[in-house]
Amino acid sequence: MPDSNKPVPTVTPPKAVISRMSLYLRQLEREIAEGNETISSTRLGGLLGVTDSQVRKDIGWFGTFGHRGVGYRCRELADGIRQNLGTARQWPVALVGCGNLGQALLGYGGFTRRGFKVRVAFDRNPALVGKLIQGIPILDFSRFSEIVQTEQIELAMLAVPADQAEATAAEIARSGVSGILNFAPTRLNLPETVAVSNVDLTIELEQLAFAVVRNRKKG
Amino acid sequence: MPDSNKPVPTVTPPKAVISRMSLYLRQLEREIAEGNETISSTRLGGLLGVTDSQVRKDIGWFGTFGHRGVGYRCRELADGIRQNLGTARQWPVALVGCGNLGQALLGYGGFTRRGFKVRVAFDRNPALVGKLIQGIPILDFSRFSEIVQTEQIELAMLAVPADQAEATAAEIARSGVSGILNFAPTRLNLPETVAVSNVDLTIELEQLAFAVVRNRKKG
Repeated sequence: MPDSNKPVPTVTPPKAVISRMSLYLRQLEREIAEGNETISSTRLGGLLGVTDSQVRKDIGWFGTFGHRGVGYRCRELADGIRQNLGTARQWPVALVGCGNLGQALLGYGGFTRRGFKVRVAFDRNPALVGKLIQGIPILDFSRFSEIVQTEQIELAMLAVPADQAEATAAEIARSGVSGILNFAPTRLNLPETVAVSNVDLTIELEQLAFAVVRNRKKG
Repeated sequence: MPDSNKPVPTVTPPKAVISRMSLYLRQLEREIAEGNETISSTRLGGLLGVTDSQVRKDIGWFGTFGHRGVGYRCRELADGIRQNLGTARQWPVALVGCGNLGQALLGYGGFTRRGFKVRVAFDRNPALVGKLIQGIPILDFSRFSEIVQTEQIELAMLAVPADQAEATAAEIARSGVSGILNFAPTRLNLPETVAVSNVDLTIELEQLAFAVVRNRKKG
């Protein structure tokens, strides 16, 4: 495996850069799947609607990956992005909330492929506790702190109803979990030691609406 | 309601700009909820990790919104972004696939608030067809084309298993729907007349992993 990525700079890149890194990584994975070994910053940017100079600037935050006369080597850059994002290794994840959304997340194949392994799930509903869903055991949420220690859980996906999100997140934060992926449409106020990402399902729908409006104007 | 937004430029803004517009809109909605009437490009950008000049450039695609000595008026800019994105009006939406993910989407409160109204849902499973879930009727997917016409459905959310996504999307496209929001982890190959947005649930998890790694380095 190539190892040309330079040490991570001490200044944190802006959030927008990190978010584009995930998109570059997706595109690189598609290029690799299609058998392409190299890609130019112009092509990589063009496919995502980003200028080539922005691509080079963004990737510069993560190290020196460009090769003169070649562009980027897809595998090398993909590995370098994963190293820097922290997803080159596996993260043990717990799911909290096993209603419809939680069960859908347990059935979602994409997480493991990207380095996120759901080890255990939690709910407060006695009708669910004790079951196996998609091979994952559902435990009572009262055991959360204990299991976080024994299973070395680092991240939690929060899929409880909006009105329970804040209190549940506070309990998760107290257990020593490092990050929460929040699917509830609620902003969480947590100590800074716990990282939070919010999933907003309406953003993509807005992007779709815009694309439709544009299509109709063209048509 | 203010109406200062200029006509949409004929050149389509890059995808990355449109995606930041959704983020600006979310931040503006938070500012409005907190009672803030105006915001500077520096503050708006800083909260999202985007430079102030990028903010001004992005918003310039949608019209002239800045006021000298004031910055942006939050409500005016939010309305202008909605006008330009096409979400100032309501979009009638159909859900296709009422398994766990589909049912979770029916229970998700955020769509209606943002201008997307799920009118009807479809499945092929006779155990689901005929039921009401969250007040939405579940119909047999064989009736899709007919209902799209009578209910004037414009967008479809696709939440079927990955191995059915391609074929189902092709049927949806034939019915005259203008856009598909694809939750299945599959790339869809459809005629260009149908806009497609893909929801990738792992991107936010990657962003979270990065934030956790950074937090640990700081701590």
